Amino acid sequence: MALTDITVPTDVALNTDLYELTMAQGFWESGHIDAQGCFNVFFRDNPFDGGYSVACGMGQIAELVENLRFDDASIDYLASIQAPGGGRLFKEGFLDYLRDFSMHVDVWAVPEGDLVFPREPMVRVQGSVIECQILETALLNLVNFQTLVATKASRVVYAAEGHPVSDFGLRRAQGYDGGLAVARASYIGGCTSTSNVLAGKIYGIPVFGTHAHSWVMAFPTELDAFRAFAKSSPKNCCLLLDTYDVHEGIKNAITVGKEMEAAGERLNAIRIDSGDLAKLSKETRAAFDEAGLPYVKISVSNDLEEYTIQSLFAQGAPIDSFGVGTKLATCDPQPSLGGVYKLSATRGSSDEPWRPVMKLSEQFYKRTIPGIQNIMRFVDASGCPVGDMIVDADSDTGNRNSMVDIIDPVTTHQLKGCEGHELLELIVKDGVRAKEPDGIEQAKARCKDALMHLDPATKRFLNPQTYPVGLEKGLSDLRQKLAAERRGM
Amino acid sequence: MALTDITVPTDVALNTDLYELTMAQGFWESGHIDAQGCFNVFFRDNPFDGGYSVACGMGQIAELVENLRFDDASIDYLASIQAPGGGRLFKEGFLDYLRDFSMHVDVWAVPEGDLVFPREPMVRVQGSVIECQILETALLNLVNFQTLVATKASRVVYAAEGHPVSDFGLRRAQGYDGGLAVARASYIGGCTSTSNVLAGKIYGIPVFGTHAHSWVMAFPTELDAFRAFAKSSPKNCCLLLDTYDVHEGIKNAITVGKEMEAAGERLNAIRIDSGDLAKLSKETRAAFDEAGLPYVKISVSNDLEEYTIQSLFAQGAPIDSFGVGTKLATCDPQPSLGGVYKLSATRGSSDEPWRPVMKLSEQFYKRTIPGIQNIMRFVDASGCPVGDMIVDADSDTGNRNSMVDIIDPVTTHQLKGCEGHELLELIVKDGVRAKEPDGIEQAKARCKDALMHLDPATKRFLNPQTYPVGLEKGLSDLRQKLAAERRGM
Repeated sequence: MALTDITVPTDVALNTDLYELTMAQGFWESGHIDAQGCFNVFFRDNPFDGGYSVACGMGQIAELVENLRFDDASIDYLASIQAPGGGRLFKEGFLDYLRDFSMHVDVWAVPEGDLVFPREPMVRVQGSVIECQILETALLNLVNFQTLVATKASRVVYAAEGHPVSDFGLRRAQGYDGGLAVARASYIGGCTSTSNVLAGKIYGIPVFGTHAHSWVMAFPTELDAFRAFAKSSPKNCCLLLDTYDVHEGIKNAITVGKEMEAAGERLNAIRIDSGDLAKLSKETRAAFDEAGLPYVKISVSNDLEEYTIQSLFAQGAPIDSFGVGTKLATCDPQPSLGGVYKLSATRGSSDEPWRPVMKLSEQFYKRTIPGIQNIMRFVDASGCPVGDMIVDADSDTGNRNSMVDIIDPVTTHQLKGCEGHELLELIVKDGVRAKEPDGIEQAKARCKDALMHLDPATKRFLNPQTYPVGLEKGLSDLRQKLAAERRGM
Repeated sequence: MALTDITVPTDVALNTDLYELTMAQGFWESGHIDAQGCFNVFFRDNPFDGGYSVACGMGQIAELVENLRFDDASIDYLASIQAPGGGRLFKEGFLDYLRDFSMHVDVWAVPEGDLVFPREPMVRVQGSVIECQILETALLNLVNFQTLVATKASRVVYAAEGHPVSDFGLRRAQGYDGGLAVARASYIGGCTSTSNVLAGKIYGIPVFGTHAHSWVMAFPTELDAFRAFAKSSPKNCCLLLDTYDVHEGIKNAITVGKEMEAAGERLNAIRIDSGDLAKLSKETRAAFDEAGLPYVKISVSNDLEEYTIQSLFAQGAPIDSFGVGTKLATCDPQPSLGGVYKLSATRGSSDEPWRPVMKLSEQFYKRTIPGIQNIMRFVDASGCPVGDMIVDADSDTGNRNSMVDIIDPVTTHQLKGCEGHELLELIVKDGVRAKEPDGIEQAKARCKDALMHLDPATKRFLNPQTYPVGLEKGLSDLRQKLAAERRGM
């Protein structure tokens, strides 16, 4: 959702699954209007068989929460919905309740751009269970996809070994908002620019673009087309070589590069968008060097992702920058993070103590973690993270060195001498921002720093080492106890 | 892009790749301000290794074209962009040109919901080359993803053998617009409802939803939760059985079903969202039948797609309806259609004849088809399509029985006695709608009818028979000639 700087649509509250509203009505009329819930957003596996994920989308949560209201047209629409068995689905009294509805929840979140691992509560929402439900879909919508894209981008950028990567994915995104989300999250994940002009306007991301094949085809000859582009954009001149034949394209681009030199300008780069990019980039580099144009950079595109880029460098391809589109915008081959939003505690009203709850399942991995949780991250003396612990948010911090396996074994002695800090920060208090969201530059810097400190064994693509995430002993005991109680029911 | 009934954002013109604007500036200042282009949207392969695609998104093109303007804030932003080599990227004169910009293009499109095949021009745009370029990204954005989703939905619905399928994908979509696009396209492709409330409001799609696991967890016991839901939504009661243990869930749901009967109500359905859906649905059916509640329907969800649904029925699972989310909204395992927008003809002004052009490539399959094209669809006496021909839009229709292979062999005699009709219709003339777009109900009906008439061999998932698409002899000769000329350059 393009929230920052674009007016949130007045009917944004309807950007939700219907069951959130049928549940809300149920809570409203079954004496649960004051009931409270604690919900966690988490995912069960890192995407792309990777070793980490980059938390993203958090910077837009506050704006969503602050603007979530039902306007008159939305209420009118809800009033018109018929129940399958006949009659109106929503009662007049409940619609009146929605008319005055606004959010008063508290939201905690992992700082945007920081790393996050499976099962960790990346966002925690507490408050009226009705409000928590009404927020669910839009929140997942925001955080699921951006976390996925930021993670994908960080992998592509890692493969590019310091060479700039530009997001070219807009045309393959799921519309307007999808394209904005791709540009925003991929910039936080490490891309240097985007082709998406609107993302430049809204988020201040550097924009990049020169010309397409159609430019070349619109002129009688390729040379005419290159000359016309160099004349129009001498300070932003990247010529696309593969409209007809790359070797002809090289010759024509060299001609234009020399003409630009003579006119006191410089051809900035060329781009190749098809064919064997390893072979063609080597031939191009050799030709431009030989022609005395060694400063002309080589940019490539064409269905790239982290593995292709690694392979190109392994073959010694002299490539200077990458445009990555389809597979970034669609997060191919895993287009969904699978993030969920699960209830972990409930209480009758804000005066009562929390009652931890958990979901069981025939599928063991779908069992949830009960209680009000935070994440403790332990870092060594050089600032490198060595393990996380999912902890009871209210437990004595002094007791948090005793960790119990949840997914992967981590032994307490590994954490000896390591500094631990709580990761979740309060970003929304009683429905309004508790702090100004970080800008995307800050989130981007945080991501870069976090990845720099992460063990390369966890960053590699093939069989990455699993980053240890444990469960505080108190929470683990609670989980066992609740499961046993449920089994005994 | 959520265009219908949602105000198009005033800065929608910036929902584009930067190179469209740098090219536009180049055309503007290189004497090509009157130059015209003809562009085609097409894809190279059917998605999902399938035998067909469902054209979708066409109903929103007119609104996009009519509203594509640059507001002052957009111009100010463009004025602020710096070129990599220094100085402003866009010239004042060009920005003045954009200030007065509006679209005057003509647009032809395949009727929404109809079938379309590889290489066919599903949308054709003619007009000022500058306008055509500025439209490119937003148009691809609209048509690429919706065609992909509609195709995916049609496959899922085909597998469901007449049982209702509801779109549950919003939370895994790429934001607000992505979710709307999923709901719209999947409804056209054959889904019967959506969980997306906003899509219900905007497009009039039936909405569906009851309760989640969190509802059950918010009550002391599952039975309490079921009773409360039945009381609140007796006319829309579908109980979710797998929060703790499905067999306990069955017992509790039967208890509530019987209580509802005693109160003169009827439990509509139950839903299972995890575990072995084949086994659990059989056990559930048997238990409800035995309890005298044979009318209670069984609904399932949990990472479903066409193959899982086929497998469930092959195992005899007595399932009545499906909720399909993640894999519909992300079109897993192929999250992109790969639709492109390629120039096929150009001319200096609207007074000149068209000059056909084609893109060559080292990758043969990337070569384009030149000329102004239409699609002829040949149907047999029972209305079943037997083959398509990509034709010169201006050629004598009497000469269109001579077809040349382009991708797959089709012999002219197969078309003997078949009725042929042109598929593309003019939807935008001189920048404004030439006709009111079809409603989505009409597009949905067209899709249903087209799929009903399509050979089952082409609809099957495994090794579908290739639907014959040929190239009119005149266009084929032109293609050969242009390629030979380019090679001779």
